[in-house]
Amino acid sequence: MTMLVPHRILIAPSGFKESLDTVEVASAIAEGIRCALPAAHIDTVPLVDGGEGSAAALAQATGGRIVDTFVTGPVGSLVPSHFALLGGAGEGTAVVEMAAAAGLTLVPRDLRDPGATTTFGVGELILAALDAGARRILVGCGDSGTCDGGLGALQALGARALDARGAEVGRGGNALADVRTLDLSGLDPRLGDVDVFVACNPYNVLLGDKGVARVFGPQKGASPEQVDRLARGLENWARILERTGVRDETYDYAHGIGTGASGGLGAGLAGGIGATLLPRFEVMLSHVDLDGLIASADLVITAEGAVDFQTPKGKIPAEVARRAKLHGKPVFALAGSIGGGARDVHTVGIDAFSSILSVPMPLEEAISAGSELLAAAAEQAMRLIMVGCSIGSQHPHAARLPAPTLPVHTASASRLPERV
Amino acid sequence: MTMLVPHRILIAPSGFKESLDTVEVASAIAEGIRCALPAAHIDTVPLVDGGEGSAAALAQATGGRIVDTFVTGPVGSLVPSHFALLGGAGEGTAVVEMAAAAGLTLVPRDLRDPGATTTFGVGELILAALDAGARRILVGCGDSGTCDGGLGALQALGARALDARGAEVGRGGNALADVRTLDLSGLDPRLGDVDVFVACNPYNVLLGDKGVARVFGPQKGASPEQVDRLARGLENWARILERTGVRDETYDYAHGIGTGASGGLGAGLAGGIGATLLPRFEVMLSHVDLDGLIASADLVITAEGAVDFQTPKGKIPAEVARRAKLHGKPVFALAGSIGGGARDVHTVGIDAFSSILSVPMPLEEAISAGSELLAAAAEQAMRLIMVGCSIGSQHPHAARLPAPTLPVHTASASRLPERV
Repeated sequence: MTMLVPHRILIAPSGFKESLDTVEVASAIAEGIRCALPAAHIDTVPLVDGGEGSAAALAQATGGRIVDTFVTGPVGSLVPSHFALLGGAGEGTAVVEMAAAAGLTLVPRDLRDPGATTTFGVGELILAALDAGARRILVGCGDSGTCDGGLGALQALGARALDARGAEVGRGGNALADVRTLDLSGLDPRLGDVDVFVACNPYNVLLGDKGVARVFGPQKGASPEQVDRLARGLENWARILERTGVRDETYDYAHGIGTGASGGLGAGLAGGIGATLLPRFEVMLSHVDLDGLIASADLVITAEGAVDFQTPKGKIPAEVARRAKLHGKPVFALAGSIGGGARDVHTVGIDAFSSILSVPMPLEEAISAGSELLAAAAEQAMRLIMVGCSIGSQHPHAARLPAPTLPVHTASASRLPERV
Repeated sequence: MTMLVPHRILIAPSGFKESLDTVEVASAIAEGIRCALPAAHIDTVPLVDGGEGSAAALAQATGGRIVDTFVTGPVGSLVPSHFALLGGAGEGTAVVEMAAAAGLTLVPRDLRDPGATTTFGVGELILAALDAGARRILVGCGDSGTCDGGLGALQALGARALDARGAEVGRGGNALADVRTLDLSGLDPRLGDVDVFVACNPYNVLLGDKGVARVFGPQKGASPEQVDRLARGLENWARILERTGVRDETYDYAHGIGTGASGGLGAGLAGGIGATLLPRFEVMLSHVDLDGLIASADLVITAEGAVDFQTPKGKIPAEVARRAKLHGKPVFALAGSIGGGARDVHTVGIDAFSSILSVPMPLEEAISAGSELLAAAAEQAMRLIMVGCSIGSQHPHAARLPAPTLPVHTASASRLPERV
């Protein structure tokens, strides 16, 4: 008797926040798969979305290096930070992870006021990348602790934002409402010679009901009143950028894709220094041939710390599944936890998901045992798939039914810009 | 494109202790499977092993009824109890669940002393079954709180156990060491007209290192000293049964299969009233054509509250897998929790298992959400299997490999007696 089993397996996961980075996740899954199917050819592609850990992962993946530095943190004090200089085909490219200079984890819990926090350090990281000779800068968004529309980053790069009396405004989201003039004449001239790409969640826009203040303000520590104030400040900021920014008059600062990324950093970098905002995976995956690896795989495995209603909204497993389904490949996802609305992921092409939890346990225990749990769950999921392989290959009683056609989410595919 | 998917699915689970009975488990799994594969033909066979809930499940499965009564509980006070009168082809058969008269849950935590607890109520339940006209009595073992070698049950049925001075000994495991004579002349004469079958875990024997006192004494509340005393008492009791019991001299009270079931109840009923001890599934499955249902299934699903190192040792999923593998059918198990040594289950024919837990949570929460968790996990496990079906059925890149030959545990098959 023979049975068809997957020969090439692609493991393309996200990291598990606070537990395992994406390289560790990929490695644990590979270990579990090898237990179930030792003969399989396994490709691992640890993926990042621009948020925490992205610079390090891309440096590692390309054989580049991390440059350590200090910058002004989101609450004003100096913080240790870093950026990546990519290697290989990425030579000359720097990766600036905004979370490493203005991330939420850098904001002490008692200082969580997105009206006060600044992206000044992001501008400093860009300057440091210029100092290091970068000719191309990728800015990763995500996990931000700010809502200043990128004002701070532009201030660090040499721009002057002035109030009605012509005085420079302060830093932080609350200052946005006071800006009347944006003077870009003092920007670092080297910016004219580099390409800056901002890796954004395209769903994040600057203004309106789905605008960054209303959607993300509360989780960054803003009260309802603060949310209103920030939203009004960002509205003013959008008008200023429209009038003074470097983009032409057709540019939509209010609702353009990614304008709301990282508390409006996207809009500020687009208007202030002409950065190109792109869906984050178009930037973050530009160093790997994910589509090529998918095309030659028989099975695609992805993973995320929490699979839930947010997963289909631009998270890594959804992007992997979207691309896999363009090639008709089966996809399953391993989940640190399975939250409300998880079944929505079937509509974006994830055929099945599986929890890594083995016994009732507190979160801390699940986090500390993450690697072992993940490997064990990957093994059993693979074994379940092999049960299916045996049925599909050889069972004489099995009915021959039409293959279910999964509703695949392809709407956004046509909107995706060219790869960077 | 077509793909082979399982057409007939057999769901043959155990109950989840303290959470869901076996009927509820089967129903939740069926619900999940239907979500993934609405066209499947699903057979459900809720299984019991003779322990808690067995009488009720068998009454329900056969269209019989439960008879409520009161008996002497394991610590001497009256407790509400019950036995089942089966319907259909089981007409005339009573099911006496020892746990309903002498189970561990009937022993208050501060009175857990297996030297004192008695199976007297089990004998009373047998008398009640005789009163109800039963011509065949199945005694289910498991979940016991006693270690009296069945002394109490025999006392209730009319036997007299006498000490060196010719006085009747008391009740409980501690009394066993004092017995010098067993007088069976006063047994209820109706016992001569009925067949009594005891459904035992065949791995439970009366004496030795694997004897019931050493293996189960501690979990019933015995200290190391008490374990020694109980073991010595059971040794004496085995000698008494050899000398006076109704079985011929070849009968092995010390190590015969099931002699240690439920604190030695098996040995007592075998020697005292000539009951037949059988592997529990030969008794408990005698009302369903499990093998026939397996033979016509494409996929067999089983489940247990905890899948761990104990599962291969005679638990329901192991028995289901053993039988399924005789027919070459794939088997997967859903687990309330996955404990140490769980991978041993692959050696008894369980091809894969899957946890029902979705997020880190305390045990109480998992118990109260059991049904929803189980249905959701069953759906996803089925979806994983369907991923495999699609690979096995149609993937052009998949390598054609020899089917893995699973090491199937068949050693005990030849030892199984004929079906009751």
